[in-house]
Amino acid sequence: MKKKLFSVLCGLAMGLTAFGQQAIFGQRNQIVSPQINQDGTVTFRLSAPRAQKVEIQGDFIQRRAEMKQENGVWTYTTGDLAPELYSYKFVVDGIELLDPSNLERSRDVKSFMSTFVISKQEGDAGYLYAPHDVPHGNVSQVWYDSPTLGINRRMTIYTPAGYETSGKKYPIMYLLHGAGGDEEAWITLGRTAQIMDNLIALGKAEPMIVVMPNGNAGQKASPSFQVGPEGRAKASYQESFPDIMNYMQKNYRLKGGAANTAICGLSMGGGHSFSISMMNPGTFGYIGLYSAAVSMGGRGGQAINADLPDDAPAAKQLKALFAAKPKLYWIGIGKTDFLYDQNKNLRSYLDKKAYPYEYFENEDGHIWKNWRIYLSIFAQKLFK
Amino acid sequence: MKKKLFSVLCGLAMGLTAFGQQAIFGQRNQIVSPQINQDGTVTFRLSAPRAQKVEIQGDFIQRRAEMKQENGVWTYTTGDLAPELYSYKFVVDGIELLDPSNLERSRDVKSFMSTFVISKQEGDAGYLYAPHDVPHGNVSQVWYDSPTLGINRRMTIYTPAGYETSGKKYPIMYLLHGAGGDEEAWITLGRTAQIMDNLIALGKAEPMIVVMPNGNAGQKASPSFQVGPEGRAKASYQESFPDIMNYMQKNYRLKGGAANTAICGLSMGGGHSFSISMMNPGTFGYIGLYSAAVSMGGRGGQAINADLPDDAPAAKQLKALFAAKPKLYWIGIGKTDFLYDQNKNLRSYLDKKAYPYEYFENEDGHIWKNWRIYLSIFAQKLFK
Repeated sequence: MKKKLFSVLCGLAMGLTAFGQQAIFGQRNQIVSPQINQDGTVTFRLSAPRAQKVEIQGDFIQRRAEMKQENGVWTYTTGDLAPELYSYKFVVDGIELLDPSNLERSRDVKSFMSTFVISKQEGDAGYLYAPHDVPHGNVSQVWYDSPTLGINRRMTIYTPAGYETSGKKYPIMYLLHGAGGDEEAWITLGRTAQIMDNLIALGKAEPMIVVMPNGNAGQKASPSFQVGPEGRAKASYQESFPDIMNYMQKNYRLKGGAANTAICGLSMGGGHSFSISMMNPGTFGYIGLYSAAVSMGGRGGQAINADLPDDAPAAKQLKALFAAKPKLYWIGIGKTDFLYDQNKNLRSYLDKKAYPYEYFENEDGHIWKNWRIYLSIFAQKLFK
Repeated sequence: MKKKLFSVLCGLAMGLTAFGQQAIFGQRNQIVSPQINQDGTVTFRLSAPRAQKVEIQGDFIQRRAEMKQENGVWTYTTGDLAPELYSYKFVVDGIELLDPSNLERSRDVKSFMSTFVISKQEGDAGYLYAPHDVPHGNVSQVWYDSPTLGINRRMTIYTPAGYETSGKKYPIMYLLHGAGGDEEAWITLGRTAQIMDNLIALGKAEPMIVVMPNGNAGQKASPSFQVGPEGRAKASYQESFPDIMNYMQKNYRLKGGAANTAICGLSMGGGHSFSISMMNPGTFGYIGLYSAAVSMGGRGGQAINADLPDDAPAAKQLKALFAAKPKLYWIGIGKTDFLYDQNKNLRSYLDKKAYPYEYFENEDGHIWKNWRIYLSIFAQKLFK
């Protein structure tokens, strides 16, 4: 039987001479890249014998670094890297190229990047972002009808391990993406399934359902399932949000109530979380603004700062929101984020009104690294 | 509010100077590629001002074609293309590159390709492979325990539109991938969700659940969720298959019985379908072998041909299988498939024994184009 199998495998391999014979086996690429070394450095390799200049560009180096060539293989080794998920590309004579030896790649809006994870110990950032041998939640791409928008739309839903068989009810977190993103953003670059699987397995987060909708009101789905051209939205995403909540209530076992319902998001999704929570006081017990584009959700066109008059629509809505006493209003932003001032202004208003909130400030700017950190922190604070 | 939104958008765009500031908006790429023209031709474009030679390689041309350069933009236009899903890459001075202007790309085992779909009328192959404004089924990545293999494993499940709310029971199709593939193969390059959505909407296929497991017994999941190194399998995939069926019976509303259960697969998955159906006579009413690696599933090490003795294990199993009178035993293969002879030999045995089967032969070889066609044909024959 073994001999037989071997001959079949050879036959399969021989069948793959032309491109038309699409690969059943991958190319047996001898190049290992990225290679994560014992000392915490990472070595990248690219075979490009005819190239004049090969550079590497990534979020672990300043600008670009030149790679060195030997026998047609270009190499670059980093310094010791901190635990994190990293993204990079090669630049071959000015042309951007993903690492052909690395199957890990993610789309960010309209561009793709090769990725890898560095983890040094259980529980560090890299550990949270990598899959481990723990119980895994399921991830579904689900279509729902939005009567408000008049279209059928797709969203991504994470159900924690055991959901299917436990018969129990669960709390829910709505997790919203940024401008230009879609329902695939949080599950790919955001590493939501890995973060939730690992936090739950470590006992650091409660098992919860996570809903990642598409926040572009005119769009039915991401480019991977684009259905016809993008239409003109009949209503705002914020106005249509109850359609999503209704779908979840009908089709999933939810504990229900503000104490079991969270909303959070990054950038535009932070703006959405800001405004959707204001439009629905008493609905969300936990509200998380990650690098939030506060003014995108800024209801009524007035800037939110200490000077906001009490009769402004946003002031009235924030008053109603905080009168319902959410358990947590959480704001996270990086020191160099270009939305830092918007968030500072929002905080100045919350301070003036003595509306309670938690604030987390860290390094860096408007980047996925921070959004994964904010999700990891926020998820641990929920439903306890 | 519009002015405000515009200024936020500008702010967002201005925040994107460094790579470290990962894109919230995509690069505003002026290049349109691929451009599907009115006359059925397709134009590809790549900006590469410093390149010496740019070629395009795809399953719509023989070998490679040279692209022509003007002002740093390289162009190639095809002839009139038949309805189909096509794959291609650029080759820039010897380096393979996906089309940076095309977000549609699929992984085939260990390599990625840019893709596009040509459709000329409703119901043609290209139409079936593209998303349309019809009810969509949900697609889930589901983890199940395999006691036989001793590991937790991932599979992809398509539930037809309406499954969640109808309360009805459904028939089920198990759809198996080829060697080197995994639980993502059929849903990406195989276009299963699009094919099923469209066939069901056209009234050409019954609404059914489609299960796409991972056929590599030592593997927990595809590279996109690789959990630790690949282990040594405790048992064969075929032996572990009832674990999958048990999971489906427990967790989904299945009509049950052979009349409502199909198994099919491509290449190695065809071999798996061949042997799993033989090992479980009376379980599958519909069996589909697509370019099947018959000898990979060839139970007992004997070649299946007209000379197979009646006391060979495979002969006994086939006898039991056909004694249970499956409604359909379907074999599909291309004329230039390198597994053509194996399938011819299998047919010679079935003919000799007068075991009933349907046979479909078409052009081309061991390629995804054929496997999508076979799925489209086979799915229309089920559960009627």
